[in-house]
Amino acid sequence: MTAYEIISEKRNGQSLSREEIHYFINEFLKGNIEDYQMTAFLMATYFSGMNEDEIFALTESYIESGQTIDLSDISGIKVDKHSTGGVGDKVSIVLAPLAASLGVVVPMISGRGLGHTGGTLDKLESITGFQVFGELKNFKQQLADIGVAMLGQTDNIVPADRRIYALRDVTATIESIPLITASIMSKKIAEGIDGLVLDVKYGNGAFMPDPEKAEKLAKNLIGVGNAFGKKVVAYLTSMQQPLGFKIGNWLEIEECLDTLHGNGPQDLLEVTLALTSEMLIIAGKAKNNAEARSLCLEALHDGRAFNKFLEMVEYQGGDVNLVKSPEKYPKAGHIEVVKSPTAGIITAFNTREIGLVGVELGAGRKKAEDEVDPQAGIILFKKIGDKADEQEELAEIRSNNEVSLDKMKNRLVAAIEIGNKIDTLPELIFKKIE
Amino acid sequence: MTAYEIISEKRNGQSLSREEIHYFINEFLKGNIEDYQMTAFLMATYFSGMNEDEIFALTESYIESGQTIDLSDISGIKVDKHSTGGVGDKVSIVLAPLAASLGVVVPMISGRGLGHTGGTLDKLESITGFQVFGELKNFKQQLADIGVAMLGQTDNIVPADRRIYALRDVTATIESIPLITASIMSKKIAEGIDGLVLDVKYGNGAFMPDPEKAEKLAKNLIGVGNAFGKKVVAYLTSMQQPLGFKIGNWLEIEECLDTLHGNGPQDLLEVTLALTSEMLIIAGKAKNNAEARSLCLEALHDGRAFNKFLEMVEYQGGDVNLVKSPEKYPKAGHIEVVKSPTAGIITAFNTREIGLVGVELGAGRKKAEDEVDPQAGIILFKKIGDKADEQEELAEIRSNNEVSLDKMKNRLVAAIEIGNKIDTLPELIFKKIE
Repeated sequence: MTAYEIISEKRNGQSLSREEIHYFINEFLKGNIEDYQMTAFLMATYFSGMNEDEIFALTESYIESGQTIDLSDISGIKVDKHSTGGVGDKVSIVLAPLAASLGVVVPMISGRGLGHTGGTLDKLESITGFQVFGELKNFKQQLADIGVAMLGQTDNIVPADRRIYALRDVTATIESIPLITASIMSKKIAEGIDGLVLDVKYGNGAFMPDPEKAEKLAKNLIGVGNAFGKKVVAYLTSMQQPLGFKIGNWLEIEECLDTLHGNGPQDLLEVTLALTSEMLIIAGKAKNNAEARSLCLEALHDGRAFNKFLEMVEYQGGDVNLVKSPEKYPKAGHIEVVKSPTAGIITAFNTREIGLVGVELGAGRKKAEDEVDPQAGIILFKKIGDKADEQEELAEIRSNNEVSLDKMKNRLVAAIEIGNKIDTLPELIFKKIE
Repeated sequence: MTAYEIISEKRNGQSLSREEIHYFINEFLKGNIEDYQMTAFLMATYFSGMNEDEIFALTESYIESGQTIDLSDISGIKVDKHSTGGVGDKVSIVLAPLAASLGVVVPMISGRGLGHTGGTLDKLESITGFQVFGELKNFKQQLADIGVAMLGQTDNIVPADRRIYALRDVTATIESIPLITASIMSKKIAEGIDGLVLDVKYGNGAFMPDPEKAEKLAKNLIGVGNAFGKKVVAYLTSMQQPLGFKIGNWLEIEECLDTLHGNGPQDLLEVTLALTSEMLIIAGKAKNNAEARSLCLEALHDGRAFNKFLEMVEYQGGDVNLVKSPEKYPKAGHIEVVKSPTAGIITAFNTREIGLVGVELGAGRKKAEDEVDPQAGIILFKKIGDKADEQEELAEIRSNNEVSLDKMKNRLVAAIEIGNKIDTLPELIFKKIE
């Protein structure tokens, strides 16, 4: 068994044995297989794919590369949620306290903004003082005390993924279903969950725009999760337009607060209700979707979800007064509106481009080491199917940096398609897969 | 234009522009593109291929990475020959002096043994004193004086290929037609030739066993050569069994000397005549194949070819007396015969395995830094279609090292298939392509 043989077999479309996959990952981590052999292997995997057994073995070897969290001493069923990422996707920040307010234990480990998409950690950190890193024992104590914690991944969990992801990121090998599956599921399984709800995005703002590929990814994620004995449910949801109206770190917190108060945008609410309901069902807190949905709506309207969020903000060092009075948050230095060049109906968004404009404004990162600006971002005033008059305001952009606002306005307006009519609106929740 | 975009485009099966290919190779050589990005690119190229324009640009960027040799001040038409490599393939050592004895200028730059195949340089160096490295001005002087020189590649010619080849070798990206084409043609064009004759091997001892792929490779090689204004002809020849009877460095020199004296094995002679004839035609020394062939046979039989070889050996510091009296060469310490376990007809050879047994005996290299043993090797006594009695001697093995000779005998006998009958003999010269 040599690195060469394993690369060569994968290149030739053969299936690798569990031993071969473990050998390849372990020897890579020990420094006996070079980065340039790993990337050749990753590209061969991109082209040749992997079967279920191979993906399981890859996920297993990832998990074994580091520490795993044992949450068995915390009572209750631990359920997390993961999204494959999109523009304006702030669901986790509503869902986690909502589910926790209804008795689900939510040990949520999230990531930072990546490419055209924002990251849950960046959004939470826009709340002054909010800490997303801490010791394992504090994480467990927080779960025992309030039933929810939202943290960043520590270096000792799945180090294989961190090292391999960094190589994938610069070698065009991100978009591979087996590699995505192992990357996502290894981290989720290592964090000690019992169940997982997945939001697999498709559409022009998703990492996997094609719904068929997104569905294939969902099935792979579920298959691997089940093989590890976890209950996993996935929804395919639309990223054909940004979720909600606000894009940018604090702007998205504002929209989450509205939603936690029962006044959020319809699409954000719908996706949140669908995913949270599945968490309740997995955790045995509701018998079916209808029951789960009404429990969620109650908790949003009677303040339990918002109070759970407040508890979490306080536990993690965030400024509770800001969350109670979001209007006190300072605004970005430059605010400009984008107007419609013509009258018509919004027929489509170039969602990815809108995300990239957000990055330019300061809301996201071009390189991993960039800082994000909590105030920067975009507020859209329209969704697909809405009418727009000529010169009507379509969106607002906010920035503190030296970027050319005119250029950004032009890019944004070009990313909003206006036509005469639209036959069908995009389906927000395309499919449930389990 | 970034490394990421270029890898991604090739991964998606898009064609790269000349600028993109030059950028990728140049930035790699400058250290701005990492080895792990290059290998991802190489694997993407393995899967996606390249069109003719891309292969031309890749070859061009390889050539521009180093020095090129200008032979325009040497009178005569300069024609080289290249083989894709096989077991017992010693054609160059007969062909170069033969062609030179008939007025072709032969500036031949060869390589060392690789994998299961031997290398021309290793074979020449088995002649005591023979030097294969020297200064460019001496190389040119030698061509001016005697019309033939057989040397190794210097570090300053096509450094891009050397660096990229080393990565391909450990990442299972050797077997890619565009990459092979650029690797071969860049070196040949950089050496200042006017024309080139190619021996593209197919069969179970070749690097590209499938004849259709070998033909595709041949067409690509010709296409790129022509695009650089060179006259190129290719033959597809069989590597379904070793060429000639002897495998191993000095053993092959012995067989070349026999051939230069007009007493060589039929298959070695036929391939040599076919390829040398094309060199004569390209150089304007013969009008057609029949004329070229009879010129070659004359030069072999009247001693001109052998005398040209002697001249070259003397010019390059080799022991002329050994070449005149090869029986004086010391033999390997261990010589054993392999006998037929059964009576029958030789139906096939596992040619690659025979080459690998030769490597184990000391005739080749497992790692680039290994030394080869000039005395080690294999002498076969049979070709496909020959009868063998039970216990008749099939082959002899020679070695000076500590390898288990019994194991080698077993591997060798297992690599010779004996059956009851054979319908058709392999075609030695399958096709001419131009």
